Amino acid sequence: MMTRASFTVAGAGPVGSLLAILLGRHGYEVGLYEGRPDSRETSIYQGRSINIALSDRGWTSLAAIGIGADARAEAIPMYHRAIHGVDGDLSALPYGKEGEAIWSVSRSGINQQLLDIADAEPNIKTHFQHRLTDVDFETARAVFQVKDDHEVSVEADYLFGADGANSKVRRRAHNFPRFSYSQTYMPQSYIELNIPANADGSHQLEKNALHIWPRKDFMLIALPNPDGTFTCTLFLNQSGDPSFESLDERSKVEAFFESNFADAMDYLERPVDVFMEKTAAPLFLVQVFPWSFNRKVALIGDAAHAIVPFYGQGMNCGFEDCAELHRLIERHDHNWDEIFPAYENARKPNGDAIAELSKRNFVEMSDLSGDRMFQLRKTIEAKFSERFPELWTPLYSMVTFSPEIPYSEALRVGDEQKKVMDKIMAMPNIEDDWDEQYVMDRLLEEASEAFGENQ
Amino acid sequence: MMTRASFTVAGAGPVGSLLAILLGRHGYEVGLYEGRPDSRETSIYQGRSINIALSDRGWTSLAAIGIGADARAEAIPMYHRAIHGVDGDLSALPYGKEGEAIWSVSRSGINQQLLDIADAEPNIKTHFQHRLTDVDFETARAVFQVKDDHEVSVEADYLFGADGANSKVRRRAHNFPRFSYSQTYMPQSYIELNIPANADGSHQLEKNALHIWPRKDFMLIALPNPDGTFTCTLFLNQSGDPSFESLDERSKVEAFFESNFADAMDYLERPVDVFMEKTAAPLFLVQVFPWSFNRKVALIGDAAHAIVPFYGQGMNCGFEDCAELHRLIERHDHNWDEIFPAYENARKPNGDAIAELSKRNFVEMSDLSGDRMFQLRKTIEAKFSERFPELWTPLYSMVTFSPEIPYSEALRVGDEQKKVMDKIMAMPNIEDDWDEQYVMDRLLEEASEAFGENQ
Repeated sequence: MMTRASFTVAGAGPVGSLLAILLGRHGYEVGLYEGRPDSRETSIYQGRSINIALSDRGWTSLAAIGIGADARAEAIPMYHRAIHGVDGDLSALPYGKEGEAIWSVSRSGINQQLLDIADAEPNIKTHFQHRLTDVDFETARAVFQVKDDHEVSVEADYLFGADGANSKVRRRAHNFPRFSYSQTYMPQSYIELNIPANADGSHQLEKNALHIWPRKDFMLIALPNPDGTFTCTLFLNQSGDPSFESLDERSKVEAFFESNFADAMDYLERPVDVFMEKTAAPLFLVQVFPWSFNRKVALIGDAAHAIVPFYGQGMNCGFEDCAELHRLIERHDHNWDEIFPAYENARKPNGDAIAELSKRNFVEMSDLSGDRMFQLRKTIEAKFSERFPELWTPLYSMVTFSPEIPYSEALRVGDEQKKVMDKIMAMPNIEDDWDEQYVMDRLLEEASEAFGENQ
Repeated sequence: MMTRASFTVAGAGPVGSLLAILLGRHGYEVGLYEGRPDSRETSIYQGRSINIALSDRGWTSLAAIGIGADARAEAIPMYHRAIHGVDGDLSALPYGKEGEAIWSVSRSGINQQLLDIADAEPNIKTHFQHRLTDVDFETARAVFQVKDDHEVSVEADYLFGADGANSKVRRRAHNFPRFSYSQTYMPQSYIELNIPANADGSHQLEKNALHIWPRKDFMLIALPNPDGTFTCTLFLNQSGDPSFESLDERSKVEAFFESNFADAMDYLERPVDVFMEKTAAPLFLVQVFPWSFNRKVALIGDAAHAIVPFYGQGMNCGFEDCAELHRLIERHDHNWDEIFPAYENARKPNGDAIAELSKRNFVEMSDLSGDRMFQLRKTIEAKFSERFPELWTPLYSMVTFSPEIPYSEALRVGDEQKKVMDKIMAMPNIEDDWDEQYVMDRLLEEASEAFGENQ
C-alpha cells in the first residue's frame, strides 16, 4: 500500500477510537490522543454516562467499518418501554416491531473494545494522558500537555476533534472567521442513581426493557447493565417547583420520592442520600458551522453536535459520522479537499435534525408516555404501519430502526405524519372506535394523500 | 430625593446613553463608560453604520423616557420604498398609511444628542477612552483600561453591558453557569458605498424614500442623509456566484455593477474602487439567555440581541429595552431583585422575535420587493386593512408603526396572516380580479375566522 497522509485524532472516546480505526484501515498514519488515562488500566469512569443506548444506526455504522458482532455480545436488548404509573401500575409500550430493540451498552465497555481494535492496527499509535492545549488551524499542528508535565507538539497533515461535548478543538475554532456557534441549556438537569442487583446477580426489575417513570415535568429512567444493576437517571427542572433548587431539604426530597416514585423506592440505592450529596449536571446542546476549517481540521461526534440524551441517539449519530467519512474516502478517492466539505454538508443537516428530535423527545418520554391518548395514537400508528408499511413507518422507528433514512428525512416525514394523526385523533369517538374499519379507511385516505406515490 | 444605588453602564452608544439618562433621572448615580474617544470632540465614526432607521418604537421609547421631539429635527422621513428595477424602472411601495414613515437618522448625530442630554444630568458622569477589561459578576465591579495606559477599578451596585454586538460584558458571561449562547453568521456580507450630494446640497435621488435595488440573491440600498448624500449598502453573498469572493477582479466587478445597477452608476461614488479596496463586513445575529446575572449585571441593546439590519429595528429594539426598564423601575419601586428578572422575561421573547423577523426580511427586501405578485399581495392587504383595521394590520405596520404590539405578537399574528393570504393568492384569476368584491368577501371570511372576536 502506498504511504498516505497522517492524522491526529484528539479524543479517544468511542467516536474518536472508531474514527482512528477507519482511518488506519484506509492506510493513514493515525495518532490517537486522549487527555485521560487508559480506562483499560485504571478505572476512571465515574458517575456519568455509565451506559448508553445503541441502535441500528450504530450497529450498521460499525458493520460498515468492518467491526463485527463482538460489540453486541455485552449489550442488552430492550424491546419495550416499561412505564411505571404513579400508582405503581406497569405497562409495556414496544419500541418497534416484534424482535426490534434498542440496546443498553456500557460506554466504557464499547470504548475499550474499540481501543483494543485500534491497538491491533499497525498504523495507529494511541497516547493517553495527553491533554490538548492548542491547535493550529492552518497546519493541523497540535500541542498536548503530557501527564501535566511537559508539552509535545504533534505535526500531522490533518486533525480531527473527537473530543466530545466540551470539545477544546471546537472552542479554539471560536476565533475562526464566520464561525456560527450555539450552546443551549435545557431547563432540566440530571443526577444518576443506582438499582443494585439481586444477590444471585439477576435484575430486580424486568431486564429487557427501558424503565420510565414519566411524571410530566420530570422523569426517572432506568437502563439495565450486564451485572444485574440498573443505571437510573432522574431528569428534573433546575429551578421552579419541583426542582433541584426547590428540593433543598431532606424531608422535601423524601416526600418527593415517596409520592412520585413509590414503587421504585424498594429498589433504588439510597436515592435521598444521593440526591442530597450530588450536584445535578446540566443538559445542553451545541450546534456549530462549519465543521471543517481550511480543509485541515474538522469536528466529529459530540464535538460537532452535542445533543440531549432523550432519543438515545448521541453515540449512534457519532458512529454515523464515521461511516459517512468511510464512504466519502472511497467516493472521493482520498481527496480531502473534497472529503471535508462533502462530509460537513452531508452530516450537518442530520446533526441538526437529531438535535431537534432529541429535544422534543423529552416531552414524549416524560409526559406523553404516561398519557392514554398518546398510547392510543401509537397503537393506531403501529396497526396502520403494519398493514401499509410502504405508506407509514412510525417516527420512532425511522429514527431508531431505519438507518437508511437520514435523520433529516425522518424529522420532515414525522412532521407530516403528525398532521395526519392529529386529524385522526380529532375524530369523534376515536377512543371507542379506534379499532373500527372506518378509522383505518380514513387514515389510509389521509396517508395516501400525504405520502402516496403521486405525491 | 433619597440617595439611590449606583450603576456602571459599559458602552456610551445610543442605547447606553439613553439607559444612563433614564437611570439618572430615576435618581441613581451613573458612571457611563466608553472605550472610544468622545465623538463630539474627535471624528471617529468611519465607514460603518453611518445612518440607521428609527421608527415609532424608537420615538415612543424616547418620549416615554422624556426625550422630546428634538431628536427628530435632523431625521429624514422615508414614506416609501423606491424600488429600482434592473431595467431602470422605478416604482414606489408605501411603508404604511398616508403620512406614516420610517426615519433615516445619523447614528453619530443621535448619539451626540443623547450624550449632551446625559451630560446635563447632575448624577451622570461620562468617561471616554475607558476600555472594559474585566467584570466581576458577583459584585458588579468593573475594570477599565484608560487611554491604553493605566487601569481603574470601578465599584457600583449594578452594571449594565450596553457595549454592542461584540459586547465584552457578554463575552465574560460565557463562563456563567447555564449560559445559553448563539452566534449565527448570515451568508451575506456587506460594504458601504456613497452617493454624493448635488453641488447645491440637494439629493441626487428622491430624498424621502429608502431606495432599493432588489436583485434576489443580493441587493443595494440607499438611505438619505441631511447633507444631501446617500449612504448605500451592498449586501452580497460572501461565497458562491456572484459573491465578494467570486468578484475578485476589477473587470468582473465593473461588469457586475454595470449589469445589475446600471441606473445607479451615474450617482455612486467610485463604486468599483471602493468594492476592490474594502473588506466586506460579516452579518451576524447573537442570541443569549439569561440577560441578567446574580441580579447585579445585565445586558441591553445589541449586547443582548445583535440582529441583522433588514427590518431597520436594531436601535428601536434597544430603545424599547430602555423604555421597558423605565416602566419596571416604577412598577417594582426600584427593587432590582424584581426588576432584573422581569426585564429579561419581558424583553427576551421580543428580542428573539425581531431577530427572526429581521432575518426573514432579507428575502422580502432582496427578492420579493421586486416581484409583481409580492406587490399585489401587499396591495390587497393594504386595501383590506384600510377597510377592516380591527381585523388586519399588515406585519410591516405591526413591527414598524405599532409600538403597542410587542414584536413577539407581531411575529405570531404575521404567521397567521400569511396562511390567510396564501389562500387568497392561490385563488384563480387573482391577478385580474384582485379588486373585485368577491375577493374582499373571501378575505373577510378567512380573516374573521382567523382573527374575529369569537377566536
